Amino acid sequence: IPGTALANADVAKLIKDPKNWAMQAGNFENQRYSNLNQINKSNVKNMKVAWTFSTGVLRGHEGGPLVIGDTLFVHSPFPNKVFAIDLETQKIKWKYEPKQDPSVIPVMCCDTVNRGLAYAEGKVFLQQADTTLVALDAKTGKKLWDVKNGDPKVGGTNTNAPHIFKDKVITGISGGEFGIRGYVAAYDINTGKQVWKGYSTGPDAEMLMDPEKTMTWTNGKMAPVGKDSSLKTWQGDQWKIGGGTTWGWYSYDPQENLMYYGSGNPSTWNPSQRPGDNKWSMTLWARDVDTGKARWVYQMTPHDEWDFDGINEVILADVDVKGKKRKVAVHFDRNGFAYTMDRVSGELLVAEKYDPKVNWATHVDMNTGRPQVVAKYSTRQNGEDVNTKGVCPAALGTKDQQPAAFSPKNGLFYVPTNHVCMDYEPFRVEYTAGQPYVGATLSMFPAPGSHGGMGNFITWDAGKGKIVQSKPEKFSVWSGALVTAGGIACYGTLEGYLKCVDADDINKELFKFKTPSGIIGNVNTWEHKGKQYIGVLSGIGGWAGIGLAAGLEKPTDGLGAVGGYAELANYTELGGVMTVFALP
Amino acid sequence: IPGTALANADVAKLIKDPKNWAMQAGNFENQRYSNLNQINKSNVKNMKVAWTFSTGVLRGHEGGPLVIGDTLFVHSPFPNKVFAIDLETQKIKWKYEPKQDPSVIPVMCCDTVNRGLAYAEGKVFLQQADTTLVALDAKTGKKLWDVKNGDPKVGGTNTNAPHIFKDKVITGISGGEFGIRGYVAAYDINTGKQVWKGYSTGPDAEMLMDPEKTMTWTNGKMAPVGKDSSLKTWQGDQWKIGGGTTWGWYSYDPQENLMYYGSGNPSTWNPSQRPGDNKWSMTLWARDVDTGKARWVYQMTPHDEWDFDGINEVILADVDVKGKKRKVAVHFDRNGFAYTMDRVSGELLVAEKYDPKVNWATHVDMNTGRPQVVAKYSTRQNGEDVNTKGVCPAALGTKDQQPAAFSPKNGLFYVPTNHVCMDYEPFRVEYTAGQPYVGATLSMFPAPGSHGGMGNFITWDAGKGKIVQSKPEKFSVWSGALVTAGGIACYGTLEGYLKCVDADDINKELFKFKTPSGIIGNVNTWEHKGKQYIGVLSGIGGWAGIGLAAGLEKPTDGLGAVGGYAELANYTELGGVMTVFALP
Ligand SMILES: O=C(O)c1cc(C(=O)O)c2c(n1)C(=O)C(=O)c1cc(C(=O)O)[nH]c1-2
Ligand SMILES: O=C(O)c1cc(C(=O)O)c2c(n1)C(=O)C(=O)c1cc(C(=O)O)[nH]c1-2
Repeated sequence: IPGTALANADVAKLIKDPKNWAMQAGNFENQRYSNLNQINKSNVKNMKVAWTFSTGVLRGHEGGPLVIGDTLFVHSPFPNKVFAIDLETQKIKWKYEPKQDPSVIPVMCCDTVNRGLAYAEGKVFLQQADTTLVALDAKTGKKLWDVKNGDPKVGGTNTNAPHIFKDKVITGISGGEFGIRGYVAAYDINTGKQVWKGYSTGPDAEMLMDPEKTMTWTNGKMAPVGKDSSLKTWQGDQWKIGGGTTWGWYSYDPQENLMYYGSGNPSTWNPSQRPGDNKWSMTLWARDVDTGKARWVYQMTPHDEWDFDGINEVILADVDVKGKKRKVAVHFDRNGFAYTMDRVSGELLVAEKYDPKVNWATHVDMNTGRPQVVAKYSTRQNGEDVNTKGVCPAALGTKDQQPAAFSPKNGLFYVPTNHVCMDYEPFRVEYTAGQPYVGATLSMFPAPGSHGGMGNFITWDAGKGKIVQSKPEKFSVWSGALVTAGGIACYGTLEGYLKCVDADDINKELFKFKTPSGIIGNVNTWEHKGKQYIGVLSGIGGWAGIGLAAGLEKPTDGLGAVGGYAELANYTELGGVMTVFALP
Repeated sequence: IPGTALANADVAKLIKDPKNWAMQAGNFENQRYSNLNQINKSNVKNMKVAWTFSTGVLRGHEGGPLVIGDTLFVHSPFPNKVFAIDLETQKIKWKYEPKQDPSVIPVMCCDTVNRGLAYAEGKVFLQQADTTLVALDAKTGKKLWDVKNGDPKVGGTNTNAPHIFKDKVITGISGGEFGIRGYVAAYDINTGKQVWKGYSTGPDAEMLMDPEKTMTWTNGKMAPVGKDSSLKTWQGDQWKIGGGTTWGWYSYDPQENLMYYGSGNPSTWNPSQRPGDNKWSMTLWARDVDTGKARWVYQMTPHDEWDFDGINEVILADVDVKGKKRKVAVHFDRNGFAYTMDRVSGELLVAEKYDPKVNWATHVDMNTGRPQVVAKYSTRQNGEDVNTKGVCPAALGTKDQQPAAFSPKNGLFYVPTNHVCMDYEPFRVEYTAGQPYVGATLSMFPAPGSHGGMGNFITWDAGKGKIVQSKPEKFSVWSGALVTAGGIACYGTLEGYLKCVDADDINKELFKFKTPSGIIGNVNTWEHKGKQYIGVLSGIGGWAGIGLAAGLEKPTDGLGAVGGYAELANYTELGGVMTVFALP
């Protein structure tokens, strides 16, 4: 099929040239690593703002721009504008502004964010909040096709970036807080025709699971999942409104032709209402890109009791594990454990806490692969209408959507983390289509007995399962990291600083600049006319910034984040600006 | 009275120290001149962004921050937030956000702008859009008092900055497009009690005019205005809905105890509906600050036929006129003439075009002080429902609210100008309280037969009435200028560039930086801990940017500005960010 070859070849070629930033994560492996080194650890201190661009939209700005040749493509939160900007003149080549029904806004759980665009073969792909997936002509901004991927009326929305693997644009769905049944769907990049769709829960066929061939970690080895592996773990039809959404970052291994991602929390947040393991929510998935068939799965948090939504990205790397170089898939889960899996076979290699404050489980049993839950912190055991206090991490996890980076130079992962704990009180809730289906009251606070802040930027050894260094931050680091061949790692803070640190000693802060608003975007880099640039979107919001973004004031509002992050108001205001840096 | 002495002394002292920027215009004289010279014509090219701050509001950001000691106070457009920012840490010390009824927004003619705060004796003064005038405690942001200055229900709003002269906070009113009868009012800074109020039109007593003592230029000399000078120039009661609003920048001469400002256009824009000179709309006023009594007046555009709203600022300076040093008041009117008046006596000294393209009048008769209207461009003579074509300048004038600067070093004025012409078709309109009372359809376009752009940044010799240099710009320069002892003049552009030029040769562009959004704010400067900073608000809007700001698309919408400035969309998007620059 020529399409396959072309799209793959095109994207692979663009990625290979570090002048571009051709995917949201920089490469298929989700590494957010750049080979550029003009800006490096000795000169980054001289970095200055080169230019700035306001998107004309406020609230949370996640994701980052794509750079293809001399054009930068950047998106905004709802209403999801798209701009093509000439890198030479900063003129707006074209702008695309979809007309979306604003009734989608209240159906978005965690701000009106959008994690950015995808590019392939002269097309720009936008995944709108209202679930419309759009292909635009990259030269003109004209719409080539669009397709409806879900239904906001029943609580389905989109915040994830579309991902281009082979000749497919792959997207997920949000709505775990509205009882949406999660799935990943692949569309033909040329026509928008759906090629396959794999659910997270339900009958095997609808999950694109083969009971005999789809494998999972079982008593210390890989074994087939068996028949009705999901259905058996739900009471009655609950899987139909059971969550397992798919709003994160996906990665791709071209050799295995596998894509990797995590599925989200089971709905509701009140565990007493949904007995069972609730498979395959909270699961890492490896699917064949052509067919969607699941090769392996691994459930991190069976029967979730804390909203430890498992969507965090899977980073592919080749890493030493117990003295052996392994092709691994590394995943920093919301539940506070970092997992190193063999990405080909799905074997569980390492599962360790990446924040020492994690207390809801003592450890992961490496035989069963199950976390060993501490009774005191079990919101299920404590039961409905009981406030379980002091659970670490909070529902937004030791890490949420903010993606980590990996440096093949030193084999380290750079992980923006939360250092937040919570009280969690589940309560009974009725399902009504299109209405919140949450069933828990939360409050959040900085991890007690620590540095007082709500975040750390850490380096992680995924072979050993150990924190290498940890740099405290006042607030959660809700921005995605970048690491480069220049030996620097950069990330944004919720106060609004872009920071770059020495990649080999992250406590050495080499650069700091106050952007217009809090940063929840992902840092990236490109080169234009011989000059390296670093860019980042600022614009406070997302779950951590929902108080400011949506103007909420009650501490337990915003699913418990408003109180925890109240102090943010002393540092920043809503915004929506891309700031571009370079050496003078 | 201790209040008088204290407030005056306090503001005067703060102004004297160039480290502060204690008034919107930098000083009482409206000069926008700074004695700071660390950033100068030889090093300004090295200037970099020091920090940035998003106000959390989009649409037009006019005015600029105040700096008092180590605190920066900055405002936003509607809903008129106020922030006190610690210059050391950029932390938000406090924030004040008034609750205003959004129904005021459609009653604002030219975007939801606000031209900034005033400061005196530990109080920050905010003039809200809904006409509420507020005094805040500068340390805490707590409201000390507020007072209602007008009524949005009948079309009264506010966009002007409050001005502190002596122990009074002086404010005006907007609503010339809603038939508001303009006035200036003075309130006690300590209590908010109204001290005086002087209307632009109507009975002498209500205008605070003394028929015998208030003087005006008459047949080559100053003469008393005489009894009922306003009433006589209106048909019946039309003065009651006759405009003459007062939304501009005021200046103050402490020696004469006089304040200076301009009154706006008569309502409606259809001249056939309001025969007469429509006094004292379109007039320069000199009022005693203690009593409000008018010492002199001068009407620039009797019987306006083009919306040449006369509110532009009056700049006080000592200038050579025909070989004699004079205490002058200089005013660049919307009508395209720059007036140099003796500010003590009110004599008309100079009146010359400051854009050679001005064509609606041949010249100002220096004996009568009246412009000599060219019949072809008289929308009155052409009559209702006739489209008068090619009038220069357009209704937004050769200059609108964007304030000019004056350098006492070289005696030159730095004037941000428009280079725009129009077609103007008046039509009959009924007055309904609170509804637009406009009565004309406009379209705007770049001045034909010129450089193709819509603006110039010029230097002006007010003694001679001559353009010294003119620097073409693609769009109107809608930002206020700054000129400094460092020999630089800075201004913003609608595309979003902050530009600094050589003050002695403005065609030498020394610095250029693309801020997040189009600039309609005013550039200013301050010093903190030995370092000079230059700051400017970006955020496209105002009348020129109303198409983007309010999302209008019909060319004749936005009172004719939408079509004229349509190309702006290729350069910028809505924003609201303060960008602060310094040497590295
Ligand atoms: O269950 C879901 O479908 C869903 C969707 C989203 C989203 O789409 O942004 C978030 C979450 N859950 C979530 O649990 C969460 O912590 C979260 C954080 C954010 C964010 O952008 O900051 N989104 C989401
Ligand atoms: O007649 C009025 O009361 C009135 C008010 C205002 C305002 O308050 O902004 C403007 C105008 N007129 C006006 O004529 C005008 O050109 C204008 C430009 C702007 C701006 O901020 O860009 N405001 C106004």
